[in-house]
Amino acid sequence: MSVIAEDCVSRISEVVPASGATLHEPVFGGNEKKYLAECIDSGFVSSVGEFVTRFESDLATYVGAQYAIAVASGTVGLQLALVASGVKPGQEVLVPALSFVATANAVSHAGAIAHFVDVAEDSWGLDPFALRSHLEEVGQSEGGKLLNKNTGREIVAVLPMHTFGHPVDMPGVLDVAAEFGLIVIEDAAESLGSLLGETHTGLFGSVGMFSFNGNKTITTGGGGALVTHDEGLARKLKHLSTTAKVPHRWSFDHDDIGFNFRMPNINAALGVAQLEQLPGFVANQRSLVSTYRQVFALSDYGVVKEERRGTTSNYWLQAFLLAQSHSSERDVILELAHDAGIAVRPLWNPLNELEPYRGNPSAFTPVAKDLWSRVICLPSSASLIPTDIH
Amino acid sequence: MSVIAEDCVSRISEVVPASGATLHEPVFGGNEKKYLAECIDSGFVSSVGEFVTRFESDLATYVGAQYAIAVASGTVGLQLALVASGVKPGQEVLVPALSFVATANAVSHAGAIAHFVDVAEDSWGLDPFALRSHLEEVGQSEGGKLLNKNTGREIVAVLPMHTFGHPVDMPGVLDVAAEFGLIVIEDAAESLGSLLGETHTGLFGSVGMFSFNGNKTITTGGGGALVTHDEGLARKLKHLSTTAKVPHRWSFDHDDIGFNFRMPNINAALGVAQLEQLPGFVANQRSLVSTYRQVFALSDYGVVKEERRGTTSNYWLQAFLLAQSHSSERDVILELAHDAGIAVRPLWNPLNELEPYRGNPSAFTPVAKDLWSRVICLPSSASLIPTDIH
Repeated sequence: MSVIAEDCVSRISEVVPASGATLHEPVFGGNEKKYLAECIDSGFVSSVGEFVTRFESDLATYVGAQYAIAVASGTVGLQLALVASGVKPGQEVLVPALSFVATANAVSHAGAIAHFVDVAEDSWGLDPFALRSHLEEVGQSEGGKLLNKNTGREIVAVLPMHTFGHPVDMPGVLDVAAEFGLIVIEDAAESLGSLLGETHTGLFGSVGMFSFNGNKTITTGGGGALVTHDEGLARKLKHLSTTAKVPHRWSFDHDDIGFNFRMPNINAALGVAQLEQLPGFVANQRSLVSTYRQVFALSDYGVVKEERRGTTSNYWLQAFLLAQSHSSERDVILELAHDAGIAVRPLWNPLNELEPYRGNPSAFTPVAKDLWSRVICLPSSASLIPTDIH
Repeated sequence: MSVIAEDCVSRISEVVPASGATLHEPVFGGNEKKYLAECIDSGFVSSVGEFVTRFESDLATYVGAQYAIAVASGTVGLQLALVASGVKPGQEVLVPALSFVATANAVSHAGAIAHFVDVAEDSWGLDPFALRSHLEEVGQSEGGKLLNKNTGREIVAVLPMHTFGHPVDMPGVLDVAAEFGLIVIEDAAESLGSLLGETHTGLFGSVGMFSFNGNKTITTGGGGALVTHDEGLARKLKHLSTTAKVPHRWSFDHDDIGFNFRMPNINAALGVAQLEQLPGFVANQRSLVSTYRQVFALSDYGVVKEERRGTTSNYWLQAFLLAQSHSSERDVILELAHDAGIAVRPLWNPLNELEPYRGNPSAFTPVAKDLWSRVICLPSSASLIPTDIH
């Protein structure tokens, strides 16, 4: 048996209940049942209702966006953002090799092709330096378009994702995007509550997406939302999410190929209750990193992931980074922890190595591969507050 | 002012409350709040949970299917059914010209091309006779494939929709499909509770889709379900609906481009409560047609739509068919009814006349056009029972 693995699991055990832990458990400590009952009493449970309006308004206020559009999931939200931004089938969208598969799937669902680039060692998200040097290598400007020399296809957008709530270097990404004429759409699925300076993630690109899946900081069961400052884009996102129906009191005319992607009112009712508790959840998630730092203080085989200077992370997912010399311990630790009832996880397999994406265009992505080999994701529920240490 | 329009609206007024009526209002008279509260207490509100399992099992039992897979909406359910059935981008799928736009949109979302055919005068759904003669005209068999002579594309599937709950002539459709080698997928969005002989709609093709949108016989807020007898297809539908993740206790591998299309547990909790009341809802909807028949008994300008012999309709949407000589009254009636607070509707604009689908391949569809010109959809909530007549 590995001494390091036993030591690591023993340290994690100090943070989680003796009964074990999942990575994330939602906390329902507010008005959830009350609002759900009110929603039933209103008779409006579907795509129109007061809770949807209120959820969008409360979310927009929280993040500081002009507009928020609630949708059925983060994945369909990203797809919608790509389509509404004008990304066409057959075009390429730059995506970090390190993300949940949904980021690349949303690009595929829009008919476009995910083109993978590397992440940065500090943010664990899209690396603007690697992005620039890759585009200088494969990009070719022609007739105002940026073409991929190798595929002949147009590269039109970049889709940074704020890994585990740690903000990407967005000023850097915006510089490269401006230089190469790329649309910027943010996958902020994991970063509700995370800021870069004073600005909330999701507001740097033309549109940002948040997820409210069951494992996120707040949940609507399933759901997502898009935020933007652009009134025209907001109108288009809402129109396309509601079957592109032309408003009329009885006629059924549709002026585009729309979607049925609106968040139902019953899910928004849950969301309104969760949003009320969001500042507390983020505070708890943020305080948990100190607990892990303390627990792992004298370990010599790795470090707890911390936020970059100038950023405020929501610490949606706590992570431990093994030293390169100990990467072989990763799977031993994962197995041992699972045997102890602690559902830790590695990073997602790099997207450019997944079977359905192996043939896609990709930069060389050594940092994504290296991080994948040695990161261990730790239990991160907002309910795990420091006082839980035993 | 039109005498016929005034007479018609006056007759409808006898059925609906004096305060007015929408086409459909959900009825929440059972365990809705109880199950929603239980769902919150369980901590499972997202894509995994006991209510999802129970909803699928209860639904499969009700319709008599081997398998049911709950999804986020009827539209994404149809898209998933097409993709899982092997329909590829660029292939053509035969769709009735008369349907809600979602039927055609789902085909587009799968990357395929909707090819429109006419409906039957009796069922108001896909007409197998018109289908056969159209395929004999435009179809060309080549290397075991059915090609569209005009476009050169392969025609691979047919997607009948059971309009307003009235079952399509499925034996007729299945005959044509067998003759031309087409996959049959049923859009049963409107027909939960509708049978053809003793067999529930949705079970004639390889897979059938039900919708639980807020205006349907039962609602989950937003949601749908797929039913099939095919174990392999059921497994594929579920796999693709959950990001195509390969089961493993910690690794993130995905072997296909999947979707995030599962119905959340919180929506399924609502669905389980609604399913318990389904037989009563269907009985009420079915009894409402007698009320309309009675109210319109001595009118000489149209007839109330009734079920075809050999079928049991759930009468999801009650409809009045104006005589051809009075089709010019349709919009006058619609306007007058709306002014009286009764939200009646015409049929959907024929799909092959909508802006995004005008360029698609289409048969000549005179029946769809004729029905569109003279059908008026009547208030049809399960809460409108005969005793409401005033």
